[in-house]
Amino acid sequence: MTVEQDPPAATRPGGRTARVREAVMRAAGDALAEHGFEGLDLADVARRADVGKTTVYRRWTNTTGLVADLLAHMAEESVSRSDTGSLREDLRTNARLVVRTLNDPRQGPLFKAVIAAATGDESAAEALHRFYAIRIAEWAGCVDAAIARGELPPGTDTHEVIRAVSAPLYYRVLCSGDPLDEAVADRAADAALAAALADAYAR
Amino acid sequence: MTVEQDPPAATRPGGRTARVREAVMRAAGDALAEHGFEGLDLADVARRADVGKTTVYRRWTNTTGLVADLLAHMAEESVSRSDTGSLREDLRTNARLVVRTLNDPRQGPLFKAVIAAATGDESAAEALHRFYAIRIAEWAGCVDAAIARGELPPGTDTHEVIRAVSAPLYYRVLCSGDPLDEAVADRAADAALAAALADAYAR
Repeated sequence: MTVEQDPPAATRPGGRTARVREAVMRAAGDALAEHGFEGLDLADVARRADVGKTTVYRRWTNTTGLVADLLAHMAEESVSRSDTGSLREDLRTNARLVVRTLNDPRQGPLFKAVIAAATGDESAAEALHRFYAIRIAEWAGCVDAAIARGELPPGTDTHEVIRAVSAPLYYRVLCSGDPLDEAVADRAADAALAAALADAYAR
Repeated sequence: MTVEQDPPAATRPGGRTARVREAVMRAAGDALAEHGFEGLDLADVARRADVGKTTVYRRWTNTTGLVADLLAHMAEESVSRSDTGSLREDLRTNARLVVRTLNDPRQGPLFKAVIAAATGDESAAEALHRFYAIRIAEWAGCVDAAIARGELPPGTDTHEVIRAVSAPLYYRVLCSGDPLDEAVADRAADAALAAALADAYAR
């Protein structure tokens, strides 16, 4: 189950090249979730995807190239931000999505594997930073809309509000090991909103 | 340079056993910072520490045992919380300490290596969670003191306030890759305080 992704469109455009990429991305995600970055192997991914080994090596070169494209693919497929008309509800929707993703039996290990890889590999780190930059910019639109509605001070750093929603959730998963559930998600969203209302995220 | 640690006491009690542990802990930290968890090797640590290989294997068994004791040692040696009389100043002191640690050329890679190891190793994860539990409990004392002074609502989850200070700093290092400096530290502290004042961390 891929929580932070729209269901694949049956009518997706593109021929064989696009189909090969879809199959390889899914296989790479499965392999990462199962064995981590250290256990990632292009020949194994080719086998899982039922794609020729030479095709995979030619197109993705190595495991870092594969992870970079997987993150780009995940960003492309990620669900759009919500637009409920209430910043509190939008931020809670975002926080709950992050919690569901990190608790998901496939996506959770996948994210952990890529974050771990990024601690020791500069290319993986760059790909990871691009992924979060895209997702933060997407959800920052909720904060822009709230500023336009007069809910927040106009000088608010909109990206920092979105980072503030995610940060406590990742901190629990990666550092403290404290539980992660919907109540924790809502509290992260409400705390970010309270700080933003107090102008703690002024640019 | 070990930023989040007091300087080693010249008069530290303990004989050969304690001296061996000190040498092995320093060597293990150096090796982890240089090569990550995957590159950690007990024979190499023994060589660096100038300690017999069999001593290291007998006492720490494997790399996970070594990392678990390293984290316990780091928690023992960590600096005590501040007590400035102002929660804002105490939280800023905590945030700046975390930033200095994560930006430190030795401690930064060391923490990243252990966090990466914890994503794929249950024993390393448990040791990491214990480390943060100890540090969070230590600094939560600042929040308890602020509640006693009447600065914050009595029902505040004191540990959650401390997690909220650290979380945006770790999120930048591990996920988004955004820069980490003293201004970011102060903003993390001020945002956590603003949210706490708005009772967003009610138990």
